[in-house]
Amino acid sequence: MTRVAVINPNTTASMTATIADAARGAAAVGTEIVAVTSTMGPVSIEGYYDEAFALPGLLLEIGRAEREGAQAAVIACFDDTGLDAARAMARMPVIGICEAAMVTASFIAKRFTVVTTMERSRVPIEELSHRYGMTGRAKVRAANISVLSLEDPNSGARDKLRSEIARAIAEDNAEAIVLGCAGMADLARTLSREFGIPVIDGVGAAVKQAEALVALGLSTSKRGTYAPPVSKTYIGPLSRFAPA
Amino acid sequence: MTRVAVINPNTTASMTATIADAARGAAAVGTEIVAVTSTMGPVSIEGYYDEAFALPGLLLEIGRAEREGAQAAVIACFDDTGLDAARAMARMPVIGICEAAMVTASFIAKRFTVVTTMERSRVPIEELSHRYGMTGRAKVRAANISVLSLEDPNSGARDKLRSEIARAIAEDNAEAIVLGCAGMADLARTLSREFGIPVIDGVGAAVKQAEALVALGLSTSKRGTYAPPVSKTYIGPLSRFAPA
Amino acid sequence: MTRVAVINPNTTASMTATIADAARGAAAVGTEIVAVTSTMGPVSIEGYYDEAFALPGLLLEIGRAEREGAQAAVIACFDDTGLDAARAMARMPVIGICEAAMVTASFIAKRFTVVTTMERSRVPIEELSHRYGMTGRAKVRAANISVLSLEDPNSGARDKLRSEIARAIAEDNAEAIVLGCAGMADLARTLSREFGIPVIDGVGAAVKQAEALVALGLSTSKRGTYAPPVSKTYIGPLSRFAPA
Amino acid sequence: MTRVAVINPNTTASMTATIADAARGAAAVGTEIVAVTSTMGPVSIEGYYDEAFALPGLLLEIGRAEREGAQAAVIACFDDTGLDAARAMARMPVIGICEAAMVTASFIAKRFTVVTTMERSRVPIEELSHRYGMTGRAKVRAANISVLSLEDPNSGARDKLRSEIARAIAEDNAEAIVLGCAGMADLARTLSREFGIPVIDGVGAAVKQAEALVALGLSTSKRGTYAPPVSKTYIGPLSRFAPA
Amino acid sequence: MTRVAVINPNTTASMTATIADAARGAAAVGTEIVAVTSTMGPVSIEGYYDEAFALPGLLLEIGRAEREGAQAAVIACFDDTGLDAARAMARMPVIGICEAAMVTASFIAKRFTVVTTMERSRVPIEELSHRYGMTGRAKVRAANISVLSLEDPNSGARDKLRSEIARAIAEDNAEAIVLGCAGMADLARTLSREFGIPVIDGVGAAVKQAEALVALGLSTSKRGTYAPPVSKTYIGPLSRFAPA
Amino acid sequence: MTRVAVINPNTTASMTATIADAARGAAAVGTEIVAVTSTMGPVSIEGYYDEAFALPGLLLEIGRAEREGAQAAVIACFDDTGLDAARAMARMPVIGICEAAMVTASFIAKRFTVVTTMERSRVPIEELSHRYGMTGRAKVRAANISVLSLEDPNSGARDKLRSEIARAIAEDNAEAIVLGCAGMADLARTLSREFGIPVIDGVGAAVKQAEALVALGLSTSKRGTYAPPVSKTYIGPLSRFAPA
Repeated sequence: MTRVAVINPNTTASMTATIADAARGAAAVGTEIVAVTSTMGPVSIEGYYDEAFALPGLLLEIGRAEREGAQAAVIACFDDTGLDAARAMARMPVIGICEAAMVTASFIAKRFTVVTTMERSRVPIEELSHRYGMTGRAKVRAANISVLSLEDPNSGARDKLRSEIARAIAEDNAEAIVLGCAGMADLARTLSREFGIPVIDGVGAAVKQAEALVALGLSTSKRGTYAPPVSKTYIGPLSRFAPA
Repeated sequence: MTRVAVINPNTTASMTATIADAARGAAAVGTEIVAVTSTMGPVSIEGYYDEAFALPGLLLEIGRAEREGAQAAVIACFDDTGLDAARAMARMPVIGICEAAMVTASFIAKRFTVVTTMERSRVPIEELSHRYGMTGRAKVRAANISVLSLEDPNSGARDKLRSEIARAIAEDNAEAIVLGCAGMADLARTLSREFGIPVIDGVGAAVKQAEALVALGLSTSKRGTYAPPVSKTYIGPLSRFAPA
Repeated sequence: MTRVAVINPNTTASMTATIADAARGAAAVGTEIVAVTSTMGPVSIEGYYDEAFALPGLLLEIGRAEREGAQAAVIACFDDTGLDAARAMARMPVIGICEAAMVTASFIAKRFTVVTTMERSRVPIEELSHRYGMTGRAKVRAANISVLSLEDPNSGARDKLRSEIARAIAEDNAEAIVLGCAGMADLARTLSREFGIPVIDGVGAAVKQAEALVALGLSTSKRGTYAPPVSKTYIGPLSRFAPA
Repeated sequence: MTRVAVINPNTTASMTATIADAARGAAAVGTEIVAVTSTMGPVSIEGYYDEAFALPGLLLEIGRAEREGAQAAVIACFDDTGLDAARAMARMPVIGICEAAMVTASFIAKRFTVVTTMERSRVPIEELSHRYGMTGRAKVRAANISVLSLEDPNSGARDKLRSEIARAIAEDNAEAIVLGCAGMADLARTLSREFGIPVIDGVGAAVKQAEALVALGLSTSKRGTYAPPVSKTYIGPLSRFAPA
Repeated sequence: MTRVAVINPNTTASMTATIADAARGAAAVGTEIVAVTSTMGPVSIEGYYDEAFALPGLLLEIGRAEREGAQAAVIACFDDTGLDAARAMARMPVIGICEAAMVTASFIAKRFTVVTTMERSRVPIEELSHRYGMTGRAKVRAANISVLSLEDPNSGARDKLRSEIARAIAEDNAEAIVLGCAGMADLARTLSREFGIPVIDGVGAAVKQAEALVALGLSTSKRGTYAPPVSKTYIGPLSRFAPA
Repeated sequence: MTRVAVINPNTTASMTATIADAARGAAAVGTEIVAVTSTMGPVSIEGYYDEAFALPGLLLEIGRAEREGAQAAVIACFDDTGLDAARAMARMPVIGICEAAMVTASFIAKRFTVVTTMERSRVPIEELSHRYGMTGRAKVRAANISVLSLEDPNSGARDKLRSEIARAIAEDNAEAIVLGCAGMADLARTLSREFGIPVIDGVGAAVKQAEALVALGLSTSKRGTYAPPVSKTYIGPLSRFAPA
């Protein structure tokens, strides 16, 4: 039995339910998905500022999950919020849904387009794309919808998403589409059928990477950049996070 | 049940046995590994020339595997020989062991070193590293051993490999090691314990990527670069490969 | 009168005193330096994990400084901790000491080396260097000293720093040196005389960039990536940070 | 007398005739062009799959040409099919028409556009452009015509090619055009006059590079990547290609 | 008192007046701006050819300014004409207006567009952008106006500039605008108000960088690339420039 | 008959004699080499400052050569001094010896090292290497010899050059060597035999590229970046260079 913690750093339980469904849909027989909603921070992460305040709650849950027996963790926000900090903290592998989705796309298409929610998230994802070595392969587009509007069937959000995918295919010559928000996790198979090209959800993709690392007996390297945090004092309300 | 074909384009059955063991060791319950030795081409692939003549035999087996029900294929040579041609031919996903190993390393370490066999394979792997977006993250070293010497316990090959790994840790500040030859597939766990940092074998890594894509319902995009080959005449002894 | 807030996200007041001296030493007549020690988070920032928990305290002080009349802010930690979040939050310009130091070095030298404290900070600074367009121009070395040991004259830290600078000159052909930690801010002029090449401190460099932007009447663009945070609920102990 | 072998890996003799004319039109007095049609493989190379099966026939002819006294070889397919393998095999210099055309363009224009045949060839040529250091200088467009349709004056192929060149000039600000298929070799001078900017054919360009290397007394480095293939057994119908 | 020489390598005194105003508008209390018009070379610099002939006059004035007590120099042409030569010659810091403007933009915006004068200057500025590490962040557009037409209120040049800025905002998603010619130095504040995003003039930006370097006690590194010119004979009319 | 002007921007006639010999040694039957020594500027070009003052004399001779019937020009200085200005001025093709040498090396080796004269020329050549797309393929080393010492058999310069080549082979794994100074043009064949790998001289390489462009009927694109200089007034002693 492999236990994979899927942490939603957006503090919105209904969104976690969507994410958990996608995670379980992708999980292997023998994988237990423990889906957790962070209890500190923004109800949705839209841009760099929200991201900063999602970190303590996210890291709290990743630490707790590891202590309670998780063998790997997934960060279910497309900004890959806190990924490096989590890797420095944990011994188990930690996977971001953006990196997992892009890597997955790179195995089945030469060129792909990420369709995300808000314009302010476009450049952060372009920067991730560059960091993950996808410069020249990935384009990023924003459908100009808010994260939580994806949950409301009457918001028109999903129609805007569809229109942006259609533009990506026509204008970018996209060979595959990556859904650029954890809140779109339930749409991959439907949209894939609809548009006739692979549509990739990062939550499912990340669960598979987490399973892979566990199966291969691999965990985060503790030599160099991800060495365990140095024991020291933390001041103020965050003092409980101080490394022992 | 997921069926993953693992094709060894090196036409040496004993090497395939090592590869098959590594593949099965990584496979999930419910995954059937079909390990196949190519029947046309060099007994070992060492450099660009050998690679060229490994292609027909490799593609023959990938095509046959797909017709016989494989849902994904792994190309078990660290040059990722014929990867693009295989993706254009097949509908199922096809994974190279170099790309899978590098991606896996990138999830658990910021900087890693690939240790391969012969000096003439160093630059081809550096080029793959660049293509997979690992420039600045991956270094490549050659242990100056032949591929098939890895099978001979008295060849000294494994000692040379160990020495090169030690140099990578000391001189490159490597946080993880990638084994740069399918013939090293049995060594990852032993070397990982020995050196105290993650050591990654591409065969196991690729099997997990193959399973991931099947579980996610994803296959090679047939829009754009990997569109099916155009029906046409092939002349001479290779005419049986002509696309219908 | 220009007011520049210099925020030390390391919650160590003695370190802030060193930083404040360096800031005042660089400031123009007519610039008031308001040096602030963050009151939440690690006493020193050494790696990605510490960085994450420095963010709330840092952003709190930047927000307070802007409300109290600061016209620009400097983040006095060489990881440029929270820089993008601060820019999204503030209207005034916000400058990181790493970016300011690298840019300053680029005006007076073709090739330079950053000497930082701990090995675990080397790769994060390499990533910043890449992000700031200094790939191929900047190298990064760690002197293997802790941040706070720089304050203790008997720790040997400054000797180790000198040795690493000497190696950078000999082995990297460095034309200038960048000091890779806010805690080294008092050493630039001494070391510059000692080694006969420019040695750059990021705190002073950032103060000058802050003054420059104020003098030019420029502030953070609120179009696109740094648009003001969307008004929404933040859950739990960080709820006071929720954007209005 | 310099003898340059021009090998057409497309197994279509009428296409070789066009190529031979272009080669001879560019050759110096004292250069003998030996134009050869490969006798194994696809009648035209359109994408990665065809490329793989063009290799054995291509390498056979290059080997034969060298044994029969050629001093340099040109691979007359714009994918630069088999270029690295040929260089590992041969001692004489081997030139690809894509690399030769791009290098030639770079001497007379800052920005240029390659116009190729089919959409599936666009990304492979973009990858070559990246590999040859032309990222940011070269764009690639497909005219959506098949390779062999270029031979049929009634196919409309040449009109589509003209339209795509016109778009490259208008939309890409192209300063020169590179013809992205060996089958266009006869069109460079006509189109150059027609559009008033340089139009470059790779066949002629490659012949000049071949002559240049011979005149300079330079041949493929046999140190490192292009060291001669290791002597070994090849299995099956390709066994005659085994390195001695 | 800090003395900054601002050299206009365009030999047009009226243009220098505009530049001097912009420089003084940005200068700190205590900075003396010495604005100088070069007396040798083209009346305006439009492309690579003009640039070559602007160099002797430019370097003459920079040398003279340093001998007469300037502590830093600004080269007031957006091609950063002669920047490396000036740095090799001078001990004081020398700043180009293109580099200063781009660096300034990078502190307040993730993505920005440079709007320059003539199409022939577009690629040179793209090359500078690449050299200054702004690839992927900066786009360059030409308004198709001559440099000196900016001085004529009836030329329509400023309207064309406005139209191009509007296109940059709409089509490039520009978060800030950089004015790509010294002759636009008076327009930054007006256009900034007009378009509601930061508009950056390089002359003011460079003056601030010059002041910064002086205040920090930094001058051009004389180790390595910018070592003083080797003493030698210069032949012909330029012999007075021979390094002593 | 093809006439190629080879301009030595170093104003030293004895150096031109060496260059002319190398050019004639590489030229085809039917090519006339017109070797010219510039009459204005430094006796040798060592660094950015010398380069600036070599430009007027160089461009004067290129202009004169074109008017007197040259069909192509070679700039015989490894900094590719004034290359872009010359291309904007001339209609005939103009080739730099650095670009020609690197391109030539790229056809016969995957990795090569440039060995130049003085340390101050190392970074400028690294920048050219980057501009010509050779990043990751080319390394640059300085033998710490002056340009003109190459002419003096008793200076020890050639021994230092040999030592540096030996280091490049041992430490860089160089597969070929590029001679990084026009004054080394006579050494390529001797050193090639001596070291057993290709050694490339840029003068000969550039002559072949010049011949190639003439044979192909190609000249510098006059659309875009290299459009003819705009007619305008030049002030002072350089007024004779003003474009008509």
